[in-house]
Amino acid sequence: MSAAGTPGGLDRVAVVGAGQIGTAIGLGLRATALGEVAVFDRARAVAARCVELGGAEVVLERPEQVFERGTVILAIPVPGIIAFLDEHGRRLRPGSLVIDTGSTKAMVVAAMRRAVRPDVHAVGGHPIAGTERPGPDGADPSTLRGATFALCPVRDDARALALGTALAAALHARPLVLDAALHDRVIARTSALPHLLSFALARATRALGDDALALAGSGYQGALRLARSDPEMVAGLIATNAAESRAALEELRQALDELAADLDEAPALATALARARG
Amino acid sequence: MSAAGTPGGLDRVAVVGAGQIGTAIGLGLRATALGEVAVFDRARAVAARCVELGGAEVVLERPEQVFERGTVILAIPVPGIIAFLDEHGRRLRPGSLVIDTGSTKAMVVAAMRRAVRPDVHAVGGHPIAGTERPGPDGADPSTLRGATFALCPVRDDARALALGTALAAALHARPLVLDAALHDRVIARTSALPHLLSFALARATRALGDDALALAGSGYQGALRLARSDPEMVAGLIATNAAESRAALEELRQALDELAADLDEAPALATALARARG
Repeated sequence: MSAAGTPGGLDRVAVVGAGQIGTAIGLGLRATALGEVAVFDRARAVAARCVELGGAEVVLERPEQVFERGTVILAIPVPGIIAFLDEHGRRLRPGSLVIDTGSTKAMVVAAMRRAVRPDVHAVGGHPIAGTERPGPDGADPSTLRGATFALCPVRDDARALALGTALAAALHARPLVLDAALHDRVIARTSALPHLLSFALARATRALGDDALALAGSGYQGALRLARSDPEMVAGLIATNAAESRAALEELRQALDELAADLDEAPALATALARARG
Repeated sequence: MSAAGTPGGLDRVAVVGAGQIGTAIGLGLRATALGEVAVFDRARAVAARCVELGGAEVVLERPEQVFERGTVILAIPVPGIIAFLDEHGRRLRPGSLVIDTGSTKAMVVAAMRRAVRPDVHAVGGHPIAGTERPGPDGADPSTLRGATFALCPVRDDARALALGTALAAALHARPLVLDAALHDRVIARTSALPHLLSFALARATRALGDDALALAGSGYQGALRLARSDPEMVAGLIATNAAESRAALEELRQALDELAADLDEAPALATALARARG
């Protein structure tokens, strides 16, 4: 039996969640021709669309079927990943690999530690890829190519990290092993915070009429891009990393206060702006 | 004498400021072959670069030479426009057109009213175009094509509006006549605010190391785009519209507070985010 054929290999993959990232991973894995990709999604039409787009060969009808696979990739919003692990984690087979794609890692890694047997290879995963277009139709496997694929250890399990690294490599992504707490500290600032700002900008400017928006340039449109993301996905990445997100928001408020102090004087404000970006 | 040959026509244009927008306008006007475009910039090398790129045929050596032209386009940051008008406005010739490209209009229109003789056709202008790349090398006349070109009346002067409209049309932009106060109310929200947020995000995340930034995705990079703008230009557009910029910032803070209230609960936060974008 080849390495790919052992439990935990990438030859029989189940992807849970047929959304943008699940479909992109399926498309990427199928391009490697390592083996069969199956998909499970509570929304049957979404799973069918994923297969139609080539993101999987097989639709799994029941969650139980997921556990017959050697590799299980949880590609749903973070609260769903945690709920799935707590409900089904014990049913993962010895020697299999379980990895997720969630945007925060500390709560996921804790759930894996709590809900998955020690003889299952578990690793937290986060491919820094994707777009703001939700659903299988938003999938673009080229966003995985060259992207960082964070891998956060769950236990002292070298095989889990090796399998996660192999998955990242199969997708032409760059594996980066780091502690879940550090991951979450950074992501609060580079992802949660920009998303919050974009949605807040949408809220603050919602009352402007279409006439007024004729004055809006590409900068404004670009600043609203993240607010087109799936609210459930965004809420998951913030709420499961709430303490760091709050801290990041507080740092942002302080930065705004610094700039606001010089708002009326162009020369002083220019200096403050130049200093702000360092 | 053709209409183009009358004072105020577009056949002898002086552009003050050889930066991104001045060069883009020069390139656009020269493509129409209406007449000669001359440029003045206190930085001689910048004016020379503008000519090298095709944004003007002639470099004017002294500010006095600007007033020999039938059309004067002030394409410098807003504080500079106001200073230029206060220093030189009386020297504009009867029948000539003076227009600017500044990002805020109430203070510019007031300066025109105060410093320019009534027999000069004056109109506030703001082409909603351009990129975050400063200087003549950042000029891209295609950004003017189809862009809104705001025109804000200075006095009851139909000829001034007609000339401003002709300038916008020559650049294939869409003229939009509106009151300076309304213009500034909108711009504070669609331009000043996104710029402040981008610089504040840069400030708040400046301490993240390169390793950490391997985790930053395209959303973060996009959110930092406006912070690559020329600080002097950005400071000008905010400080000359300080009251509205402050009000916009306060609305943004309230929107952030609304979202922060639900930060810990994914379902509630998802609802708040969806409501925020309306």
